[in-house]
Amino acid sequence: MDIVMWSYRRDVNYYETDRMGVIHHSNYLRILEEARMAWMEENLIPYPEIERRGIIVPFTESKATFISFLRFGDTFRVDMALTRFTGLRMHFSYKVYNETTGELCHEAETVHYTTTREDYKPTSVKRSHPDIFEQLKELVSDMD
Amino acid sequence: MDIVMWSYRRDVNYYETDRMGVIHHSNYLRILEEARMAWMEENLIPYPEIERRGIIVPFTESKATFISFLRFGDTFRVDMALTRFTGLRMHFSYKVYNETTGELCHEAETVHYTTTREDYKPTSVKRSHPDIFEQLKELVSDMD
Amino acid sequence: MDIVMWSYRRDVNYYETDRMGVIHHSNYLRILEEARMAWMEENLIPYPEIERRGIIVPFTESKATFISFLRFGDTFRVDMALTRFTGLRMHFSYKVYNETTGELCHEAETVHYTTTREDYKPTSVKRSHPDIFEQLKELVSDMD
Amino acid sequence: MDIVMWSYRRDVNYYETDRMGVIHHSNYLRILEEARMAWMEENLIPYPEIERRGIIVPFTESKATFISFLRFGDTFRVDMALTRFTGLRMHFSYKVYNETTGELCHEAETVHYTTTREDYKPTSVKRSHPDIFEQLKELVSDMD
Repeated sequence: MDIVMWSYRRDVNYYETDRMGVIHHSNYLRILEEARMAWMEENLIPYPEIERRGIIVPFTESKATFISFLRFGDTFRVDMALTRFTGLRMHFSYKVYNETTGELCHEAETVHYTTTREDYKPTSVKRSHPDIFEQLKELVSDMD
Repeated sequence: MDIVMWSYRRDVNYYETDRMGVIHHSNYLRILEEARMAWMEENLIPYPEIERRGIIVPFTESKATFISFLRFGDTFRVDMALTRFTGLRMHFSYKVYNETTGELCHEAETVHYTTTREDYKPTSVKRSHPDIFEQLKELVSDMD
Repeated sequence: MDIVMWSYRRDVNYYETDRMGVIHHSNYLRILEEARMAWMEENLIPYPEIERRGIIVPFTESKATFISFLRFGDTFRVDMALTRFTGLRMHFSYKVYNETTGELCHEAETVHYTTTREDYKPTSVKRSHPDIFEQLKELVSDMD
Repeated sequence: MDIVMWSYRRDVNYYETDRMGVIHHSNYLRILEEARMAWMEENLIPYPEIERRGIIVPFTESKATFISFLRFGDTFRVDMALTRFTGLRMHFSYKVYNETTGELCHEAETVHYTTTREDYKPTSVKRSHPDIFEQLKELVSDMD
């Protein structure tokens, strides 16, 4: 099994800052989503295609530590990995680094579930989409 | 015809500010949307019900002047009116006041169109929903 | 010691929804912030005044479970409490209910620290602002 | 004088969509800001450096037409130009294209003013920052 560590990188947007002069804490969940979508596109299949194949991946849990600030003018990097996949639930881990200062800014874990149905109830993709199930199994890795 | 001037009021949210310490300019379009939805609920029917009746009201034009700043801790008031309705297009005008200082902060006009179809192409509600058409005609007023 | 349970209530905004038709998960952190600011204004002193007195309260940890969805047209209620205060760190707990359906939507905990300095390093308010320290001690309560 | 047409390109983010399944109209002002910041970094100097040199560039006017929709999965391109500069006011024009479908999505104009002061009152940079003044004069071009 390969270790699949994925990095996503961009500059802080002006509109992401708040009156403290730093990225508002709620925006980290948006940044992690961007990183996750880029990870899927690179390692699996683009999320719009996952949706077209009938799978929706809602958000169910999050845990985060806010360690240092990101400011406008900074570039950040998200290192991330799919750390666990049960057929039903995906666990992702993330570390966000300030590439301008080298500091670790943010650590997070998010959990998602798959559903093939309209009502957004958890449904394993093992039977319904065995190819995606196998690919995801292969992608599981440790964070470090 | 009655003059229907409608006011919407709330406090500035912390997360709406940017590193200048003021409401980020993009948030005014969100505030105007809140005011418009409250206007519909009070004067017409709630927008979720309009949608259930098969009408969607997309955004097509906007024009705005940013006059003075709103800061966290300020309360604002949006005065608004439906200034024109053609059966197809709704024109709204807005003035946003800082209730803490009394200053005029923002002036805007937005134009929307109605559609009864899935493809979001403009469609008059005159025939499809004559009751809503009549009600909207009655609501047209000048801003001042 | 009184139990201080605080509730914050409002409608879902259209712009808070995403293409799943529900509130985007990142917006819960914004909603909790609104609730917290309302809590401070009612029970302590308004946050803008806390800032003027030289205290900043950055965000340091969060944990959340996303249980059911909130949609445009729904009204929600946030029940919250300050569950722990060390002089340095404040722990808040929250439960978000869909008032339209009665369902529990979201459970969360957030941790914040106080700082009296420009560099946003944690600093206890015990000595610098004993009145605020005492008031906060009094406000600590269980969630239920 | 050279024609300086600048293009900015990225994918639509999931969190930028609303329940209509398209980018929420308020997000165009954020996208235009991203494009403008990239334009400054490439053609002038990065905006954080402009701020460090004591210039702030607040937003004063906007005008926009929403022509067709951008959806999650689409890539867009912003073509933009500084169309007028008076020493005090900068006028930018933008056209946003859906690169996936080739359609024009959005046309906009924004006006900004320069200020060298803390109170955000309009101030010409002609005397205070003649090098930036000259550079900006050179960058003025038609949109085409």
